[in-house]
Amino acid sequence: MSDATAAAAHSDPLLLNLFLMFAAAKLFAEICERLRQPAVVGEIIAGVLIGPSVLGWVAPSELTHALGELGVIFLLFAVGLETKPRSIMQVGATAGIVAVLGVVVPFGAGWGYMRWAGHNSIESLFLGAAMVATSVGITARVLSGMGLLSLKSSRIILGAAVIDDVLGLLVLAVVSSLAGGSVNYLEIGTTALLAIGFVIFVATVGAPVVTRITPAIQRLRIGHALFIGAIVLCFALAVAAAQIGIAAIIGAFLAGMALAEAGENQHELHEQVRGVTEFFTPFFLVGIGMQLNLAVFADRATIVAALVVTLLAVLTKFFGCGLGALKLGWRGAAQVGVGMAPRGEVGIVVAQIGLGLGVISDHVFAIVLFMAVATTMIAPPLLVPLFRGERADGG
Amino acid sequence: MSDATAAAAHSDPLLLNLFLMFAAAKLFAEICERLRQPAVVGEIIAGVLIGPSVLGWVAPSELTHALGELGVIFLLFAVGLETKPRSIMQVGATAGIVAVLGVVVPFGAGWGYMRWAGHNSIESLFLGAAMVATSVGITARVLSGMGLLSLKSSRIILGAAVIDDVLGLLVLAVVSSLAGGSVNYLEIGTTALLAIGFVIFVATVGAPVVTRITPAIQRLRIGHALFIGAIVLCFALAVAAAQIGIAAIIGAFLAGMALAEAGENQHELHEQVRGVTEFFTPFFLVGIGMQLNLAVFADRATIVAALVVTLLAVLTKFFGCGLGALKLGWRGAAQVGVGMAPRGEVGIVVAQIGLGLGVISDHVFAIVLFMAVATTMIAPPLLVPLFRGERADGG
Repeated sequence: MSDATAAAAHSDPLLLNLFLMFAAAKLFAEICERLRQPAVVGEIIAGVLIGPSVLGWVAPSELTHALGELGVIFLLFAVGLETKPRSIMQVGATAGIVAVLGVVVPFGAGWGYMRWAGHNSIESLFLGAAMVATSVGITARVLSGMGLLSLKSSRIILGAAVIDDVLGLLVLAVVSSLAGGSVNYLEIGTTALLAIGFVIFVATVGAPVVTRITPAIQRLRIGHALFIGAIVLCFALAVAAAQIGIAAIIGAFLAGMALAEAGENQHELHEQVRGVTEFFTPFFLVGIGMQLNLAVFADRATIVAALVVTLLAVLTKFFGCGLGALKLGWRGAAQVGVGMAPRGEVGIVVAQIGLGLGVISDHVFAIVLFMAVATTMIAPPLLVPLFRGERADGG
Repeated sequence: MSDATAAAAHSDPLLLNLFLMFAAAKLFAEICERLRQPAVVGEIIAGVLIGPSVLGWVAPSELTHALGELGVIFLLFAVGLETKPRSIMQVGATAGIVAVLGVVVPFGAGWGYMRWAGHNSIESLFLGAAMVATSVGITARVLSGMGLLSLKSSRIILGAAVIDDVLGLLVLAVVSSLAGGSVNYLEIGTTALLAIGFVIFVATVGAPVVTRITPAIQRLRIGHALFIGAIVLCFALAVAAAQIGIAAIIGAFLAGMALAEAGENQHELHEQVRGVTEFFTPFFLVGIGMQLNLAVFADRATIVAALVVTLLAVLTKFFGCGLGALKLGWRGAAQVGVGMAPRGEVGIVVAQIGLGLGVISDHVFAIVLFMAVATTMIAPPLLVPLFRGERADGG
C-alpha cells in the first residue's frame, strides 16, 4: 500500500485540524490564566497564531466555521440555562435604554467618521451597522467563568444584547434596502414584528410550557431524555431565530432561559450541557482569531482607519451603554459599557453581507474585521478587574 | 431588506440540517424503544428516511460526515472509559482467535463468492477486504445501553475489534498493493509493526502514564481541566492511529481505556463525556442510514448479489468469530458472533478506497454499501435477546 493509499484509508486532515485548534486554545488559555489574563483572550490568540495570518497550520473552512457557530450557540444556551426569565424582566427597562443608546451612538459615530474620511454614503451606513452589533458570547463566557451571571449588571448586559440584536437586524434591514435603492417599509415592518413577537413570545410563554412538558420528556424511553430534549429545544429555537433573521444565538439563549427553572436541580443535565459547551466553545474563540487578517497592516492608511474605528467602537459602546446604565452607579455603568463592547462574529456577519451586496470595499471589510476581533480581545481584560470582588447574589 | 438578504444575514441550512438529523434520530429511537427494538436501529432508519434515498431532506455533506466521524470517535472513547485495560488483557488470547477467524472466514467467503460470480481477481479481493471490517461502535452502543460492557463476551468483542482493525489494515494494504501491481513487503511490514506497536504501547503504558499525570492536569487553572485533558488525549490518539493507518476510533478507544482507572470516580468527567457522546452519536447513526442507496434495488442482479453478500457477511462472522469464542458456551459464542457482524463505516471506507483506485465497479460499491448498512441494522435486534438476562458483573 502506498503512503497515499494508507492516508486515504483512515487519515484525514479533519481530526488533525480539530486537535490543533482544541489543544492550542487550551494551551493559551492556561498561559493567560497564569498571567492573570482572561482565558478567552488566550483562545483567540491561539486562533491568530495557528490561523493563516501567522503559522498557517489551520485554514478556516466550512467545517471550522460550523463548529464555531455551534460553539457560540451552546455557549449562549448554557448561559440561558443559568438565567431565569424573571431576572431579565426585572431589568428590562434599563436593558432597553442600554440597547437603544448602544445602537444609536455607535451607528452615528461610525457613519460620521466614514463620511468625514470621504467614503460614500452606503459604505458609511454599513460600517455604522457593523458598529451596532454586539457579540454577547465573550462577555457571557467571562462572567459565567467568574460565577457572576446573576449580578444585576450581568443581567442588564444579557437583556440588552437580546434587544440590541433585534434593533441591529432592523438597522441592517434598512441599510441593505438603501443599498438596493429603495426601502420596503412593509417588509421591514413585518420583519420587526416577527422578531419582536418571537422574542416576547418565547421569553414569556417558553418557561411555563417547558416546565409543564418536562415530566413527559423525563418519562421517554430513550436514554438521557432531558438532555436530548434540551438539545432539540436549543436547535429548534436557534433555527427559528435564524429563519426570522435574528442571530441563532438569541434563539439558543431564549431556549436555555425557558429551561432554566425546570432544569434547576438537574445536576446531570447541567454537566452534560457543560460537556458540549466546553467541547465546542474553543472552536468559536479560535475561529474568531483565525479571521484576523494581519496583512491589513501592510497599508498605513488601513492601520490608522482600523485603529480609529476600533477606538470609536469601544468608546461609543462604553459611553452609550454606560449612560443607559448610569443608575447602577459609575462602576455598574462601566461594567455594562465594557460588557457590550465586543462585536465578534456578529460584526463580521454584517460586513460579509455588505461585501456580498458589493457595496463595501475590501479595505472597509478589513477594517470591520479588525475592529470585530480587536473589540472582542480588548473587553475581557477590562471586564475582569471591573467585576472583581463582586458577589454573585445580586447587584 | 430582501428575503434573500435576510436569509444571508443569519440563517443557513447548517443548523436546520443538524436539527432535522438530531430530532429525527431521537424520534425514531423513541419509537423503536417502544416497539422493544434497539434505539440504534431507529436512528439508522431515521437517516434512511431523511436522506437522499427517501425524503431527501438532508444530503450527506463534508460536514455531516465530520459530525458522524466525531460521533463514532466519542462513542468508542466513552466505551473505553468504562473498560479497564486489565479486563481486556484477561481475554486477550480468546479475542485474538476470534479476530483471526473473523478475518479469514469472511475474507475467503467474500473472495470465493465474487470469483464464482465471475468478477475479476482484484475486485473479488477488495470485496473480501470489505467483508473483514468490523464496526464495533454499533455493538458497543447496544451493550453500553444495556449496562453489559463488563461482561466477558463484551470484553472479547471489544478486544477482538481492536485486533481485527489492525489485521484489516494489513489485508487492505496487501490488496491495495496487488491492485497497484506489486507488493512492497517492506512497507507493509513497517505498517504492521507500527500498528501493532502503537496498540500494545498505548494499551500497556497508557493507563500508568495517564494515572500519573492526572493530578497535574487537575491542578491546571483552566476550568474543567480533567475533561479538557480527556478530549485532548482522545483527539491525540485518534490522530495518531489515523496517521499509522488504523481507524481513528481505535485510538479513541485506547485513549478512553488509558483514562478508565484515573477517571473511575470522576462523576463530572463521566457526565461531561456523556454529554458530548450523546450529542454526537446520532450524527454517526443517521449518517450511516443516509449512505444507504435504495436505488440499488432498481437492478435485479444487484439486489440478489447484495442480499447474498449480506447473508455471507453475517454468517461468516457469526460462525468464524463464534467458533473462536466457543469456550464461552453456545450463548457466549453467539453473542460474540453477532456482536462482530456490523461492518458500518469501516466497510464503507474500504469500498471507497477500492473505488478511488478504480479497481471496483459502481455495482460492487453499491453491494458493499448495502452490506455495510444491512449488517449494521441486523445485529442490534439479535443482540438484545442474546444478552437479555445477563448480569453486568462478569460472564
